[in-house]
Amino acid sequence: MFFHVQRMLNEIVPDEPDPAAANALQEGLGGQFGEMRTMMQYLFQSFNFRGPTAKPFRDLLYGVGTEEIGHVELIASTIAQLVDGSPRYQGNPTSLDEPGAGGETPLSLALSGGNIHHWLVGAQGALPVDAQGDPWTGKYVYDSGNLPLNLLYNLMLESTGRLQKCRLYEMTANKTARSTIAYLIVRDQAHENAYAKALEALGVEWNKLLPIPKTNAERFPEVATLLEQGLQSKQYTFSLDQLSEAGRVFQGESPSKDGTTLSTEQAPVGVPFPGIAVERPEEFGPGLDPELMELVQATAEMEMRETAAPLWGPAGS
Amino acid sequence: MFFHVQRMLNEIVPDEPDPAAANALQEGLGGQFGEMRTMMQYLFQSFNFRGPTAKPFRDLLYGVGTEEIGHVELIASTIAQLVDGSPRYQGNPTSLDEPGAGGETPLSLALSGGNIHHWLVGAQGALPVDAQGDPWTGKYVYDSGNLPLNLLYNLMLESTGRLQKCRLYEMTANKTARSTIAYLIVRDQAHENAYAKALEALGVEWNKLLPIPKTNAERFPEVATLLEQGLQSKQYTFSLDQLSEAGRVFQGESPSKDGTTLSTEQAPVGVPFPGIAVERPEEFGPGLDPELMELVQATAEMEMRETAAPLWGPAGS
Amino acid sequence: MFFHVQRMLNEIVPDEPDPAAANALQEGLGGQFGEMRTMMQYLFQSFNFRGPTAKPFRDLLYGVGTEEIGHVELIASTIAQLVDGSPRYQGNPTSLDEPGAGGETPLSLALSGGNIHHWLVGAQGALPVDAQGDPWTGKYVYDSGNLPLNLLYNLMLESTGRLQKCRLYEMTANKTARSTIAYLIVRDQAHENAYAKALEALGVEWNKLLPIPKTNAERFPEVATLLEQGLQSKQYTFSLDQLSEAGRVFQGESPSKDGTTLSTEQAPVGVPFPGIAVERPEEFGPGLDPELMELVQATAEMEMRETAAPLWGPAGS
Amino acid sequence: MFFHVQRMLNEIVPDEPDPAAANALQEGLGGQFGEMRTMMQYLFQSFNFRGPTAKPFRDLLYGVGTEEIGHVELIASTIAQLVDGSPRYQGNPTSLDEPGAGGETPLSLALSGGNIHHWLVGAQGALPVDAQGDPWTGKYVYDSGNLPLNLLYNLMLESTGRLQKCRLYEMTANKTARSTIAYLIVRDQAHENAYAKALEALGVEWNKLLPIPKTNAERFPEVATLLEQGLQSKQYTFSLDQLSEAGRVFQGESPSKDGTTLSTEQAPVGVPFPGIAVERPEEFGPGLDPELMELVQATAEMEMRETAAPLWGPAGS
Amino acid sequence: MFFHVQRMLNEIVPDEPDPAAANALQEGLGGQFGEMRTMMQYLFQSFNFRGPTAKPFRDLLYGVGTEEIGHVELIASTIAQLVDGSPRYQGNPTSLDEPGAGGETPLSLALSGGNIHHWLVGAQGALPVDAQGDPWTGKYVYDSGNLPLNLLYNLMLESTGRLQKCRLYEMTANKTARSTIAYLIVRDQAHENAYAKALEALGVEWNKLLPIPKTNAERFPEVATLLEQGLQSKQYTFSLDQLSEAGRVFQGESPSKDGTTLSTEQAPVGVPFPGIAVERPEEFGPGLDPELMELVQATAEMEMRETAAPLWGPAGS
Amino acid sequence: MFFHVQRMLNEIVPDEPDPAAANALQEGLGGQFGEMRTMMQYLFQSFNFRGPTAKPFRDLLYGVGTEEIGHVELIASTIAQLVDGSPRYQGNPTSLDEPGAGGETPLSLALSGGNIHHWLVGAQGALPVDAQGDPWTGKYVYDSGNLPLNLLYNLMLESTGRLQKCRLYEMTANKTARSTIAYLIVRDQAHENAYAKALEALGVEWNKLLPIPKTNAERFPEVATLLEQGLQSKQYTFSLDQLSEAGRVFQGESPSKDGTTLSTEQAPVGVPFPGIAVERPEEFGPGLDPELMELVQATAEMEMRETAAPLWGPAGS
Repeated sequence: MFFHVQRMLNEIVPDEPDPAAANALQEGLGGQFGEMRTMMQYLFQSFNFRGPTAKPFRDLLYGVGTEEIGHVELIASTIAQLVDGSPRYQGNPTSLDEPGAGGETPLSLALSGGNIHHWLVGAQGALPVDAQGDPWTGKYVYDSGNLPLNLLYNLMLESTGRLQKCRLYEMTANKTARSTIAYLIVRDQAHENAYAKALEALGVEWNKLLPIPKTNAERFPEVATLLEQGLQSKQYTFSLDQLSEAGRVFQGESPSKDGTTLSTEQAPVGVPFPGIAVERPEEFGPGLDPELMELVQATAEMEMRETAAPLWGPAGS
Repeated sequence: MFFHVQRMLNEIVPDEPDPAAANALQEGLGGQFGEMRTMMQYLFQSFNFRGPTAKPFRDLLYGVGTEEIGHVELIASTIAQLVDGSPRYQGNPTSLDEPGAGGETPLSLALSGGNIHHWLVGAQGALPVDAQGDPWTGKYVYDSGNLPLNLLYNLMLESTGRLQKCRLYEMTANKTARSTIAYLIVRDQAHENAYAKALEALGVEWNKLLPIPKTNAERFPEVATLLEQGLQSKQYTFSLDQLSEAGRVFQGESPSKDGTTLSTEQAPVGVPFPGIAVERPEEFGPGLDPELMELVQATAEMEMRETAAPLWGPAGS
Repeated sequence: MFFHVQRMLNEIVPDEPDPAAANALQEGLGGQFGEMRTMMQYLFQSFNFRGPTAKPFRDLLYGVGTEEIGHVELIASTIAQLVDGSPRYQGNPTSLDEPGAGGETPLSLALSGGNIHHWLVGAQGALPVDAQGDPWTGKYVYDSGNLPLNLLYNLMLESTGRLQKCRLYEMTANKTARSTIAYLIVRDQAHENAYAKALEALGVEWNKLLPIPKTNAERFPEVATLLEQGLQSKQYTFSLDQLSEAGRVFQGESPSKDGTTLSTEQAPVGVPFPGIAVERPEEFGPGLDPELMELVQATAEMEMRETAAPLWGPAGS
Repeated sequence: MFFHVQRMLNEIVPDEPDPAAANALQEGLGGQFGEMRTMMQYLFQSFNFRGPTAKPFRDLLYGVGTEEIGHVELIASTIAQLVDGSPRYQGNPTSLDEPGAGGETPLSLALSGGNIHHWLVGAQGALPVDAQGDPWTGKYVYDSGNLPLNLLYNLMLESTGRLQKCRLYEMTANKTARSTIAYLIVRDQAHENAYAKALEALGVEWNKLLPIPKTNAERFPEVATLLEQGLQSKQYTFSLDQLSEAGRVFQGESPSKDGTTLSTEQAPVGVPFPGIAVERPEEFGPGLDPELMELVQATAEMEMRETAAPLWGPAGS
Repeated sequence: MFFHVQRMLNEIVPDEPDPAAANALQEGLGGQFGEMRTMMQYLFQSFNFRGPTAKPFRDLLYGVGTEEIGHVELIASTIAQLVDGSPRYQGNPTSLDEPGAGGETPLSLALSGGNIHHWLVGAQGALPVDAQGDPWTGKYVYDSGNLPLNLLYNLMLESTGRLQKCRLYEMTANKTARSTIAYLIVRDQAHENAYAKALEALGVEWNKLLPIPKTNAERFPEVATLLEQGLQSKQYTFSLDQLSEAGRVFQGESPSKDGTTLSTEQAPVGVPFPGIAVERPEEFGPGLDPELMELVQATAEMEMRETAAPLWGPAGS
Repeated sequence: MFFHVQRMLNEIVPDEPDPAAANALQEGLGGQFGEMRTMMQYLFQSFNFRGPTAKPFRDLLYGVGTEEIGHVELIASTIAQLVDGSPRYQGNPTSLDEPGAGGETPLSLALSGGNIHHWLVGAQGALPVDAQGDPWTGKYVYDSGNLPLNLLYNLMLESTGRLQKCRLYEMTANKTARSTIAYLIVRDQAHENAYAKALEALGVEWNKLLPIPKTNAERFPEVATLLEQGLQSKQYTFSLDQLSEAGRVFQGESPSKDGTTLSTEQAPVGVPFPGIAVERPEEFGPGLDPELMELVQATAEMEMRETAAPLWGPAGS
């Protein structure tokens, strides 16, 4: 059972709209090594887990899997913000307030690169596809049922995800994009450390191989800041009932040999949700004309029903 | 940001292993109208939401989307339980303790129906595919960016999901399968009511059309029990910080005209997790031989690190 | 612009329901060499046609393409008829009138072979997929824009389609299935002749190679009957305005060297539509309960509006 | 059984070649909510229809499905016209008559956007893919076998198709593209009305929700002209034998509440086919060199065989 | 540049036809972790290789990749042999010489399990698909361009391939199937050793983790025989010009800690090709009737032209 | 069993990096009519071959199939060379030696066309996809099991492949691209001749239809040079043990009626491999930092083990 809070894992820094960067970031969302894949892979490995004595490994998978849902939320929101309003780059800037006025073609930008579906299928929002527009597929999910193999695969998966994000960082200077890319680079490294540490528990010694690729990412300023906070060596359980035993695996010296010690916490504080995106009439989104809006507002003005349910929690169950 | 608790939304009733039923249930997990799809569709609609004044609708989507993650957990766990151990139906029952002993072919059942990948790719666990073995795809996710259209689609989606689950109920008498099918039938109807009610807020009057299909499901005993508890008219926000305004939409008379009144709560109590599944040596799962197991246990025996982090919550942030 | 008449190209002979045969026939409907593919391939080749002086070839493609829509209708209807009611093979035959009565599982047949989607996704009807359940895809459509290549491909396509249908004939003795298979075998040969003849116009001499495979299909009684009627050497234009010049290509000696002469007609007479299939309450199809049915009948009882439009035709345009 | 006439449903207005617009229009042809999909969905729903008393609904589906084949023809022809000759935008305009002369690279335009397959796989023609180049798939087709659900889905489908076409209108000012887009916008609305009306027959009252999106499309001049002709409130049966009872459903006040009354006709008059496209030697299309052309013309010069078959029709059958 | 010899890497032991086993083996041919995938993955990693000083690693990849083409040949031939003639299991055994005689349905077996395409699309031969019938896809190929990551992935890939083959061994007792499965189990382990050794060169120490899964495969008699021959510790370069430097990596103690020493050779001797499969008239394969056969034989009887080309080799170039 | 030599079938002429041309060439590698497809199609047809008396045809397929593996190697290497280093076109040319220095975005070129995966998923190398980025699929492989049909298909396949390569030639003037395109045009024609000749053995007379398209390719200088060498009329067996009987089919007058006589040889001499590509630190490829490189070099400096194995060959086996 899962819960949600209206807080974002990391701040999405404002910058100009940038549909090309948005399209590139789709790889990190719906790509073969993106967040939807890590999320689903770890959750399926958790659901199908075997071996009652190996519970700390199961809980580790559950915790990372739950964090990945929040990563999906973070990167999807970043993409939506990057696409939103990008048509204003086009045509007469004075027509911004009134797209399509005077016989213009307000969405013509959609024809000149990136993913045309951002404007045509969605209304300037994120899509469950990669940077080539290919949809995410369940074929990506790997669960062999063999624990050492799963850990090996997961380590490779996190390393590849981070490799791609480092390349993404070198593809765009947009601050909105980079703020999220940098956060995911550091968290991917934390997860790489998690699986590497789990394999150490099975006897492997990594010596100087990790991290892959080597963290020359520290020359990226946004990354450097997060590394200084030690986020690459911290694991979150996102376990509301605190039953997770992941901390039994994720402890001791970091397998990346960066001198840090691994530690486990329940969850980061995060940042408040950004406001809800404005309407885009040229996209017919959300598509509420004044009459419908009036109906909606009538609904919204009704008093919210008092909820008698106690705050969920160990005490309240 | 999302959290997890080690409780299942509904009890998975024990019964015999049944790989054919497991395969059928895959449709409800990874099919075009299954739980992975509803989960992803509502989450993407939440991430991309437009229209600051329509927040109660956004929160409704977030709440249902978060519940669907728990549905994915529930049905995946049910499938894993249905497949688990099914080879014991085959061959000499006295060889159960030692699969493959004496030159046997302990997994030969895998060749005679259902999804061979349940045994060959996974180790008797759930897969992100449908009942034909086709992988889930991002193409399923619908988010037009137009609120009335999204609501219309979501209503149709829940109705189709429930239709398929009613058919699934009539395909198998296995109690493990039916306990989860019945729960999802009733919750799908609750979600159908949610979207229908939201469309009522935009002016539609359904008269006697809903629910689709008509709830002759009440002749299914497991369903009848849940209907008596009113689960078809209850909405959960799964909102940990209680910021959800979904209750402004989900209230008043049920659009299914069954005489009930809609109400909103934070979350159900659920049931404790079943124990972790046993090893299946014939599948090399989890694949820890005595030496590796010893290493793992050495890890498990270390004291779990004391977490200094306070319980997450509005007060703790 | 296309028109429809409520007549079937060939009679679908009644026999027992046979879901395994139905599933096999899906290859002929939605498979890589099935009717959906030939239909779409020839229509796209018609839409994109180049070369004003080559109009007879364009019209040939249009005519075959239009016939193939009727083939899609014929084989889809055959499949629907083969699946319909097949659950009655199962369980207690006395419960036929009331599926699911007494705690039965009326759709349990769906778990034992064929395509489970026939019962779970559809309500015992045809699907746009092949005999493995793979969906039809636009990737199948071949249009190189080069006329000789297209003709060569189309010849190979019809030969392969007929080859597969001959194999289908040898897979089932069900008369419903065989009546449609036999008709399509003979019409595929007519189309094979059409493209072979068109290539003869470009200089090729086939000698004794055609048809591929050799028509040992004449030992199939249903095929023999149609061959005696000369259906393998007849081309239909399905051209309502009689502007088709396909007859300029399809004439003279048959390239199959069977002693027949090729001839062109507007259309076959066909047979009247079979009645509309009955309800399947265990499938919730069509899903009209008494109250809804009453509403529908109220609609049906209103007088059909008199149409002032003249019968379409050259004279009426 | 289907027939064809060499007339186009609406005029394709000439303008400059525009491969970017052509690519965008592919969404309307081979996309998830394009014409190939509506065509196949309604035809499959017709083939699989259940419920003898609901024949007017079946006939409605057949009529719309048959019209959609003509839509596929219209939009495919529009795309072919938009791509055709587009390489002349590139390089030295004096080399137009002789592509590739003097060592040029006449098809280099193909590398700079749109869908490279338009030039590389086809010869400047339409493809059965969407605006991202993804092939059409049978997975798009929805037929639950439950009539109310099918109607609900079809309504949503037409609304989404129209939404996307309104967005397409705002992406390009090319007159060739807009003439077809505008026609399809209005016809989609007619079909939206058809399914909405059918749901009214089952009890639903739409009040002011329809059409979705609201027809601010009337500010598009090409659309306004067609709306004035009332095309959004007219249904065609395309029923050659006039056996269609669709008119029993499609009558009375429009559910879009625009003050019009719904009416049913056999077919529109349409416009004559445009001429066959010229050769593109740089594409080797149609690929007939002088020798082959001579052979073809020898064929074409033969007298067209007199057809003895009477004009098909109720009298002629 | 590649060469072929008409020898098989290992003997395919004769046994009864077994279409269910054939279908299972398709996973090892066209599955996500099958031979087509390893072949393509290593060849692409070879073609795209970076780093002039790392040539021994490149050559290792080339050698394993070339061996995998032979694995594809071996397993495809095994599958073809397993399917071939399987219809004789059905119906009257006296009709074997004359399939379909007397109105029989000689291919009816195709409807009762396995992959119907084995009989319907092919003529009792292997297909480039997995055990669920899903086609092989280029998405499987992993080449990150980062050498340590590629090695890590390849190690995991070989381990997973071997895991699946061990499961396949436990699914069937057919000797034809098991002879090839056993050979591939041992060669996969050799390749697992190769990549593990390459990672040792980068510093990793595996201790007791390898092989994954542990070689309890030695209790499979066919595997035990090959292990005794040391095939799990031998690497072949398949390098005709002996320029491969793979032996610089693959040497020293085995990372599987089984006491063996790694060694490199050019190629195994293999076994002569089995004879060409007989005709299957019920499949129209090869489809040469007496007249065509006569033409072919006329060709075959011509003397084979004397080839003046010298035997290819370093000396002959 | 297959062997490899470190020689390329044809020289890849150096020119500037050109990612747009690289992307176009992907169609020739991973497209529906590209080299991966011909390779797999002919190999599967060889593995599944039926008819002991038709061995020369089997051997012909084996020979062409083996050549195609070399084509895959040639075109993949060409693509890798075309992409490699292309970022230097961007930004400040003085930063070439140190990508990303001074806060630059060295990979920003990846966002402006072609296939972003060339930089993001791979490290400037070839991918198993087509020019639209769609992955190669096993669905492409055609093997009907019927020899005449297979030959007809193969002829069409080679003609289509050559057609597309002629179009590719007209899309780019890059010499690297054109050197490989020209070679493949001529070899495709040789294979087209092979299958056409095989069909002549079955009775077909082509007259003046072949080649399709007509070789106006001789006006391309690179093609003209190869035609003068007669490469379009030469067949290679790539048969190391010289057991191939393909020469019995491929002899006599060319079916293209160009006055040449067909002849068969073992293999071309080819050209030495180009050097291994340099590192791309901005891609983290190969990703060996100084420490890892030191470890690798320690390995490389060890003496290469003396291979005791004799040169493979009939005498040495």
